[in-house]
Amino acid sequence: MTRLDENDVREAVAALAAALGDENVITSAGELLDYRDPYDYQGSDEHTGAAVVTPESVEDVREIVRIANAFRVPLWTFGQGRNYAYGGPAPRVKGSIQVSFRKMNRVLEVDDELAYAVVEPGVRFHDLYDHLRAGGYRLWPSIPDLGWGSVVGNTLDSGRGYTRYGDHPSTQCGMEVVLANGELLRTGMGGMSTSKVWNLFRESYGPNHAGLFFQSNFGIVTKMGVWLMRAPEVYVSGWATWHDEDAVTGVVDALRELMFEGIITNQPLLGFGGPSESGRDAREGGWMVRFALYGREPVVEAQYAAVRDALERAGDVTVGRRDYRGDEERAAATIHDDKVQGGVPGLELLEMFKKLNGEDAGHLDLSALGPLTGADVLASIRLRRELHARYGLTYSAGIILGPRSALNISPVVFDTRDEQATRAAYAAYNEMAVELARAGYPVYRTNIQSMDVVADTFDFGDHAQRRLNERLKDLLDPNGILSPGKQGIWPRHMRDGGAAAAP
Amino acid sequence: MTRLDENDVREAVAALAAALGDENVITSAGELLDYRDPYDYQGSDEHTGAAVVTPESVEDVREIVRIANAFRVPLWTFGQGRNYAYGGPAPRVKGSIQVSFRKMNRVLEVDDELAYAVVEPGVRFHDLYDHLRAGGYRLWPSIPDLGWGSVVGNTLDSGRGYTRYGDHPSTQCGMEVVLANGELLRTGMGGMSTSKVWNLFRESYGPNHAGLFFQSNFGIVTKMGVWLMRAPEVYVSGWATWHDEDAVTGVVDALRELMFEGIITNQPLLGFGGPSESGRDAREGGWMVRFALYGREPVVEAQYAAVRDALERAGDVTVGRRDYRGDEERAAATIHDDKVQGGVPGLELLEMFKKLNGEDAGHLDLSALGPLTGADVLASIRLRRELHARYGLTYSAGIILGPRSALNISPVVFDTRDEQATRAAYAAYNEMAVELARAGYPVYRTNIQSMDVVADTFDFGDHAQRRLNERLKDLLDPNGILSPGKQGIWPRHMRDGGAAAAP
Repeated sequence: MTRLDENDVREAVAALAAALGDENVITSAGELLDYRDPYDYQGSDEHTGAAVVTPESVEDVREIVRIANAFRVPLWTFGQGRNYAYGGPAPRVKGSIQVSFRKMNRVLEVDDELAYAVVEPGVRFHDLYDHLRAGGYRLWPSIPDLGWGSVVGNTLDSGRGYTRYGDHPSTQCGMEVVLANGELLRTGMGGMSTSKVWNLFRESYGPNHAGLFFQSNFGIVTKMGVWLMRAPEVYVSGWATWHDEDAVTGVVDALRELMFEGIITNQPLLGFGGPSESGRDAREGGWMVRFALYGREPVVEAQYAAVRDALERAGDVTVGRRDYRGDEERAAATIHDDKVQGGVPGLELLEMFKKLNGEDAGHLDLSALGPLTGADVLASIRLRRELHARYGLTYSAGIILGPRSALNISPVVFDTRDEQATRAAYAAYNEMAVELARAGYPVYRTNIQSMDVVADTFDFGDHAQRRLNERLKDLLDPNGILSPGKQGIWPRHMRDGGAAAAP
Repeated sequence: MTRLDENDVREAVAALAAALGDENVITSAGELLDYRDPYDYQGSDEHTGAAVVTPESVEDVREIVRIANAFRVPLWTFGQGRNYAYGGPAPRVKGSIQVSFRKMNRVLEVDDELAYAVVEPGVRFHDLYDHLRAGGYRLWPSIPDLGWGSVVGNTLDSGRGYTRYGDHPSTQCGMEVVLANGELLRTGMGGMSTSKVWNLFRESYGPNHAGLFFQSNFGIVTKMGVWLMRAPEVYVSGWATWHDEDAVTGVVDALRELMFEGIITNQPLLGFGGPSESGRDAREGGWMVRFALYGREPVVEAQYAAVRDALERAGDVTVGRRDYRGDEERAAATIHDDKVQGGVPGLELLEMFKKLNGEDAGHLDLSALGPLTGADVLASIRLRRELHARYGLTYSAGIILGPRSALNISPVVFDTRDEQATRAAYAAYNEMAVELARAGYPVYRTNIQSMDVVADTFDFGDHAQRRLNERLKDLLDPNGILSPGKQGIWPRHMRDGGAAAAP
């Protein structure tokens, strides 16, 4: 385990307070409690920082980077730190200085005609939604299950939502990034200072750098262009329910074809065994999938008929819908499925989780990808069930159906007051991640304690991706100040027991 | 200008012939003529290579890279070299060894259910189309105007097509890349050797490297996953024609909204002044836009009604359509618009260009991006017309309407037998590219002779993108053997007059 020099850290914190003001540096033990890993064992102080610094501008971020380099003290950056199932705001290296973007939370620009926004990394889904509503824009954000997270943070983590724009990485268009050497980069067409299309065209002249800053510790993103969805005339929140597990095959195959046809344009969610707050009794103890349609009345009606027909032919399935017309109806939605498919943020899933599992419950999300075929989705459900049973864990499925892949997410739930149970849950998660990799299902995103384990599963070419990442890390951040260990990428002095090798 | 040591080159060519066989190394002056820049002045030998080497396998590519490093001789890689308006197969540095992928032209895999293919870099759009037809797959490729180019080469150059999958960079899913040090990398989920989803999910665990290999000289792509479009029940090739130039505003705005609604899902092409081979008389001397609809009969009918209605409200516009049902009808399409929107490759535009301008005519494509608003598209048309007039060039517009940007492409036509006319055309192109940049319209892709000029226009942060590209180049290709000068990225020893600086 890497140990930091406490003097260096202390001096860096003092320099930050001098540069940004005391009000932007949190060091009191009580306040820092809010910035630990919320789902780590409560008695652990392993994943805690020495201070939290809150920049208010891009210049502040450059100053923070300068100070971190001067004192060789690592930073750990987060947007809001609400990504609880993956570690929240907590750093991998104890004693790091956490950089919180909660004060850089301005929606810098909204273009109603061209349907995009430019946001700072502290802007929450709630904030963006409120901003769009207040401004009377004809635009929807795409949101994940919980609305309190950072738009930029979620997108950079390759997060998903449930509207037509639910593939969040692909809604990114144009980033501004502070590099470890303090330089300011704009990706893509933002590389031209006069450019009219920074947030309108995703490719670059020359290599595209944007991908380097996803799930990454190569730079700090300070602005991002986000494409938004035009509010539709009608929004149909649809679903199907059934009991026979084998029907999963036909339903998934039918949905894939409907997606290929451009009829279903959002990412449906297939679920089993979860609690129902929807009032749809058929879901209790059975299977369900939700999907959405958006558009003009006659088009949506023709599309709904096609969906209903295809799903009913797939098995003994009940198909239903609720319609929303206009922004007021949609904003008044209360059912979780309808809210998230309509781009309305909320916290109801967190509340439900606490109600079911207790205020001190934590969970890890085992999130792995497989092919979008009915046969494979069913096989992966059965493999998951077996794995969860092996470790004495309750299994429930939430599977996001992307255009060609199925993102199978099953939570590992535990009591964070119980050290043994918490440790056992992390250990079980790691073993299951390795087992899933062996079966061909890569974990795409993980909690801070499992990042090295998951990185190890990416073994092609004798771990060619890791080797490339390490070369890039040493080039772009030679002092290793940016989020060391993120996604298993360590700077040279923290690799191989910390023995620094010559270039 | 960089000069290579002729002895080094000669020894490298001999080593390549020894390693790959004489049949894979072209050195005869007569045959090499086919590998010069087809649209350079015919008397020039500036953009010519010393030899063309044709690898037949990934191992051959690694061997070529090893030899190039050993002799410090630069390579220049191309798929088919048919990208004539941008330089074809020609290298920037005279005497480079050209790497042709024409013998690595296998379609390695087609998955009909999940709608993708894995191809080698020599596979032409024609090859992929023929392969899909012959195999009876329910899949369409997306193709650019000419079908003889490489799928991988076009995609890596951020090329465009005209079906629903016309944004070629975003159809890429999973690359295999030979790095300059000979390592083999697979991007994204291909980083796991057991992965079932290399070609199904676009993001990575950790940073995404794929973007690094677009318009790039950081590696040689040897395989690529390409997403394909499910053949629709009905395909409608639609168009609108009109005479009043001001109506461009309303038409563009209407189309943008139809794209936002998910009604038009391909990338429409707006044109003026081009020759008509379609038999639609209204186009002669006037304006036209083409678009396509794909899907089930009732959905497509509802969509067509919405399109017709919106376009007719936009101005004094005539709307028309031709329908195709089933693969035989579509394969029999003869009109260019219908072929390209239906994924059927051809060469008819090249033939038409020669017929109009002569066998020895060349052209440069001035391809720059602007916002997708009617007002801006009209303004950019008028700016182009002015610029073309300033240089005595005929102006014709071909504008691809993407989801938020308009890609405005106007050809600069000249006689390649006439040295003065050819040089003047390149000079005019360069001046217009700079002028467009000043007005906020970045060139996204350019010919080999203009790459430095266009790179210079990307000035944000004192050319931060170029500085990052140079750092990456020096890290990933320290000997500068991969396509030096591509997109203005030069290895250290060829920068700043070749004075090598210490790291």
